[in-house]
Amino acid sequence: MTPNVTLFYGTFVDLPRVKSGDKHELSIKHGALWVSPATGRIQGFDWSISSEADLQFLIKKSGWAGAQIVRAREEQNEFFFPGFIDTHIHAPQYPNSGLFGSSTLLDWLETYTFPLESSLGNLSKAHNVYNTVISRTLANGTTFASYFATIHVPATNLLATLCHTRGQRALIGRICMDNPDFCPAYYRDISPQESLSATKENIAHIHSLDPHGDLVRPILTPRFAPTCSHESLTSLGSLAASHSPPLHIQTHIAENKDEVSLVQTLFPEYPSYAGVYDAHSLLTNRTILAHAVHLSHPEQSLIASRGSKISHCPASNSALGSGIAPVRDLLDAGITVGLGTDVSGGYSPSILEAARQACLVSRLLRHTSRSVPNPTSNTENEKKTDEGREVLTIEESLYLATRGGASVVDMAEDLGGFETGMFFDAQLIRLGNIVSVPVEEGASKLESESKSTSKSVVDIFGWESWTEKVHKWVWTGDDRNVRSVWVRGRVVHSLEEDEESSFAAAIAAGFGEGWMRWVIGGLGVSALGVVLRRRRFF
Amino acid sequence: MTPNVTLFYGTFVDLPRVKSGDKHELSIKHGALWVSPATGRIQGFDWSISSEADLQFLIKKSGWAGAQIVRAREEQNEFFFPGFIDTHIHAPQYPNSGLFGSSTLLDWLETYTFPLESSLGNLSKAHNVYNTVISRTLANGTTFASYFATIHVPATNLLATLCHTRGQRALIGRICMDNPDFCPAYYRDISPQESLSATKENIAHIHSLDPHGDLVRPILTPRFAPTCSHESLTSLGSLAASHSPPLHIQTHIAENKDEVSLVQTLFPEYPSYAGVYDAHSLLTNRTILAHAVHLSHPEQSLIASRGSKISHCPASNSALGSGIAPVRDLLDAGITVGLGTDVSGGYSPSILEAARQACLVSRLLRHTSRSVPNPTSNTENEKKTDEGREVLTIEESLYLATRGGASVVDMAEDLGGFETGMFFDAQLIRLGNIVSVPVEEGASKLESESKSTSKSVVDIFGWESWTEKVHKWVWTGDDRNVRSVWVRGRVVHSLEEDEESSFAAAIAAGFGEGWMRWVIGGLGVSALGVVLRRRRFF
Repeated sequence: MTPNVTLFYGTFVDLPRVKSGDKHELSIKHGALWVSPATGRIQGFDWSISSEADLQFLIKKSGWAGAQIVRAREEQNEFFFPGFIDTHIHAPQYPNSGLFGSSTLLDWLETYTFPLESSLGNLSKAHNVYNTVISRTLANGTTFASYFATIHVPATNLLATLCHTRGQRALIGRICMDNPDFCPAYYRDISPQESLSATKENIAHIHSLDPHGDLVRPILTPRFAPTCSHESLTSLGSLAASHSPPLHIQTHIAENKDEVSLVQTLFPEYPSYAGVYDAHSLLTNRTILAHAVHLSHPEQSLIASRGSKISHCPASNSALGSGIAPVRDLLDAGITVGLGTDVSGGYSPSILEAARQACLVSRLLRHTSRSVPNPTSNTENEKKTDEGREVLTIEESLYLATRGGASVVDMAEDLGGFETGMFFDAQLIRLGNIVSVPVEEGASKLESESKSTSKSVVDIFGWESWTEKVHKWVWTGDDRNVRSVWVRGRVVHSLEEDEESSFAAAIAAGFGEGWMRWVIGGLGVSALGVVLRRRRFF
Repeated sequence: MTPNVTLFYGTFVDLPRVKSGDKHELSIKHGALWVSPATGRIQGFDWSISSEADLQFLIKKSGWAGAQIVRAREEQNEFFFPGFIDTHIHAPQYPNSGLFGSSTLLDWLETYTFPLESSLGNLSKAHNVYNTVISRTLANGTTFASYFATIHVPATNLLATLCHTRGQRALIGRICMDNPDFCPAYYRDISPQESLSATKENIAHIHSLDPHGDLVRPILTPRFAPTCSHESLTSLGSLAASHSPPLHIQTHIAENKDEVSLVQTLFPEYPSYAGVYDAHSLLTNRTILAHAVHLSHPEQSLIASRGSKISHCPASNSALGSGIAPVRDLLDAGITVGLGTDVSGGYSPSILEAARQACLVSRLLRHTSRSVPNPTSNTENEKKTDEGREVLTIEESLYLATRGGASVVDMAEDLGGFETGMFFDAQLIRLGNIVSVPVEEGASKLESESKSTSKSVVDIFGWESWTEKVHKWVWTGDDRNVRSVWVRGRVVHSLEEDEESSFAAAIAAGFGEGWMRWVIGGLGVSALGVVLRRRRFF
């Protein structure tokens, strides 16, 4: 019998919405929260529950005798946190994480990226790469990813199927790139028509896989203006509008100065880079624009007026020397911003790393020569800049990583926090027990210290406030601190404890039959696709 | 019977010295290298040894039947790499790693740093903190650290003793800070005389602990100019010169613009910040200056002419919004540069993270408004800047982390590479086996994938060159990849495999009697000090 709720008990940390201009603060609550296993949504919470006895009383009172209980253990400094939302990641580039040398955007594409992406036409390779990237992002607490795939339909379909099977929310985009003047002959759509029909084929697969878009949805993905013909851009704009609601769209904008110049050269008839997308009906309120490092202020205003969203990818922007996106200016212009890893321009699949990098580069922004002076700035504003107006607080960065991302993917009401009615897409963070190496205890204590070392490198000394613990997590934490991850109330990742295999952990966590079939079956890739399509995970 | 050599077999990666202006490249060698257990120095190598049979022939031929053999396993993508040298780290600040909010240098000192440092007068707390920081730095491959301690003599002595006992090379500096106009009443030396005598007491302890400075040496540590009286600076300069060879010196310089202004206000009679140190005989060829973000060109020339060294601390400089140190300019000025974590201005105890951050910020430097135009720059130079002259390659960053650091601590002939006569201070890096999730293998394969995931997050797909593997390590690796660490040819850290405790691993690795006493003894802190002083680890 399915229990009527799943009960989560312990410390819950999230970032409440604030009024524009107000300071973001952590909400730190202790108590119980319950989720409907049927819908995966939060049904209620009670922050007055402060002991095991209170919890048992609640269970008795509510008739929840069969309920599964998940506890965040105080002595292990555990807390529940909303799942991270990665608003910009290139799944096929994952094997190139860390490989970029000293390149910048345009030579990086040619040297590292196009050759790898083109090889993902091989389904076996795609299976290996996509499985790995899903494992790594889930292990880092990413419950939702907006993926760029490649131009290949079968491999892109496979990515959608794998996300769906493993329970990760995703937007899946087959890349459109048909401009022979920019794209290499070995890796491009052979015509605008071909580009469009391949895209429709991928959309049809995703709609058949997940008709209600419970987990996986399609997203139109013109790579960026230079890779696309006018005809292709026009047809994608029309395709988006022809659906109800309109299809999501994702692309890149103003990442690098040479790229901005290239767009001016290729599209001289448009007033700006953003203007190119706007003229092709691609600047909608369901559009995600990655980077936005070098936008002019008129472009920022245009994007704000269209309700398009921006994915800030600081790790990538530093790694490729693109620059520092002026996030405060974007927010002040009224634009919705989330964070992206931009694997593999970004070297890490972790949104926690993206949050760190967002904080770091915002602290360097005061030292940059802002190429585009803000026309509205005056002495007072400039003084504020000097005082750190542009600095993102840790709380603000975590907001971008959760609620910001939820708004970017149009799910602000459903994701990003612990509110009644929201989906329970969350991670259980374990910082580990308090560091203590008393001299008077010998070998056994050292041994346990060492074990705890292997599980977390966040060192809690015992005198930290909860806010300080969260700050330590942000700056020194990693995937070792992500004990479990849920999407729609179901476990999608779990760290094995005491060297239990993840297989056993997954079984214990109640994975469904479809997953079992996948694990135990001796199946070829194409057969796998069929099974996965028929036996949906949720 | 002690074997006459320790044999290391497998892949060795280091960064050879290059002529000024030449490109740094990885040296990647496969073969055998042998170390004298008595001296800890590399006695020789043979890069023609390419199989187990070759190795056994070498052993037989050389009469090394009893030799211990350490293998870097090719199938685990393992390689030996020189130990990292952290040229600037504040051991007592470690518990504040990640706690700095949105502060900048001067308010960070007051809010976060002085209160924590002052509490380290408690020896039990100091023991806990210092043990933890040594564990974490060793676990991250740091074989040498130049530590700032606190003003407290017993706790600073304890830090020296712990480093010595655990086998980490260190420079240990009791902090001198006696200026009542800057230092808080609760945390300062009460007079210049007291500051000097406490410093001498600490030096005496270290010289008695390690008379030949085999592992641990003292370093004079005026915190930075604003914390010190003229008298104190003068007496430290004299004290350094009174020893033969002169004592090492470390301090901070030009980290933050407000700090630079403060120094101008406090020391109006000197031409510059560097000029203050120079006037007090503190700018010697054994001086380590941390940060150097905002030096003028005359200051760079002065530092170069004195042969003083610079510790580049990019993670800290970004975290506290200090700015980006122009490392290329410093190198071109002829200054020796190494890397520092600057815990806890820096949030991470890892020099690998410092190397990453050095690469990242160098790629952002082109976007900064360089406050100090180089008087020698001309159109040609500026063009070069635009083309990325200021970018540090990954190889250059690794050079700074090893050979650069060795030069900064005056051990360029002894540390930083795999050359005959150098100490074997090294780490064995394990990237793990190749990522592979074939569909046709089921549960067992998934299980092993998961286990490997827990050990490394560097994903090797099998098509990477050795150079690419090293790049992946730099960008995505962490302490999980540091399988073992040696100082002077002895194991000082070892990752437990298959959940063996580090205790057992340490025993197996042949830790000495002093360490055993420490582990099994039921000793108070003061008794511990006595035992450790008498029973030297090496």
